[in-house]
Amino acid sequence: MGIDPGIATVGFGVIEAEANKIKPIRYGVISTPAGLRLALRLQQIYRDMCQLIDTFHPDAISVEELFFNTNITTGIAVAHGRGVAILAGEEKQIPMFEYTPLQVKQCITGYGRAEKKQMMEMVRRLLNLDAVPRPDDAADALALAICHSRFSNSLLNIDGGNVCSTI
Amino acid sequence: MGIDPGIATVGFGVIEAEANKIKPIRYGVISTPAGLRLALRLQQIYRDMCQLIDTFHPDAISVEELFFNTNITTGIAVAHGRGVAILAGEEKQIPMFEYTPLQVKQCITGYGRAEKKQMMEMVRRLLNLDAVPRPDDAADALALAICHSRFSNSLLNIDGGNVCSTI
Repeated sequence: MGIDPGIATVGFGVIEAEANKIKPIRYGVISTPAGLRLALRLQQIYRDMCQLIDTFHPDAISVEELFFNTNITTGIAVAHGRGVAILAGEEKQIPMFEYTPLQVKQCITGYGRAEKKQMMEMVRRLLNLDAVPRPDDAADALALAICHSRFSNSLLNIDGGNVCSTI
Repeated sequence: MGIDPGIATVGFGVIEAEANKIKPIRYGVISTPAGLRLALRLQQIYRDMCQLIDTFHPDAISVEELFFNTNITTGIAVAHGRGVAILAGEEKQIPMFEYTPLQVKQCITGYGRAEKKQMMEMVRRLLNLDAVPRPDDAADALALAICHSRFSNSLLNIDGGNVCSTI
């Protein structure tokens, strides 16, 4: 299961991976209303994460690493949300891994500076979907899940290929 | 109970406040080892927070608002920790309030730009302690608790005096 962390929207994407075959199981977003108190938004993210884990029993969770862009205030809020999402994974004892946006892009498109549109299109193709998954956060989460399935596959085969970090 | 959020160290300070009288009940820190995985540090903070709440049954929790200083990487980690601390309060259904460092300084010393040393000394005096509480994070947490006891007191008496925000 891939997780694109956030506070207003947390993307999730569950895939099944066997050898080189991957297929989508479920994807979507956890949304919290903007008017809600921070504490209640965090609680909702935490509880929904727990419920997703209980429903899909993922073997691993891959979470996007957080980088600061222009808006620091948004970044603080996202980090709050990422914290409770990671807590949910740990409480449910699911192994967690993190990938940088660069690693995900490189893994999905072969190019670290690929454009968003290209990423989305590749996610669609890799999962054999009729249309690009919506919303973007769900597609990003699917990309993270695909990324981990590939890396963990190669980790089994290639010695010292530890390109992701354990959270 | 006041909480000074963090990832390596979370300060806590429990006081009893009746009318204008305040006394310290317990203060200290939740510490997480630097070598520990982020997920385990977050889990420890969450669980210790829950245990503190179960032990002291606080009427309210006051948490310091997070501002970004120079180190953004530290800021992200602190925001992760703050997220799970707030989640613990919400799961235990304790009303939570946040104060800026400026509000706390103003409340404790009467001066928003007071130096740390002056703050610590005032916390010592207000709580009738023999020595300044250690470590600093615990003293900061006590200051947050005192700050809320004063503001909530005045909120009961003065209309429209809502200087703190609900988390």
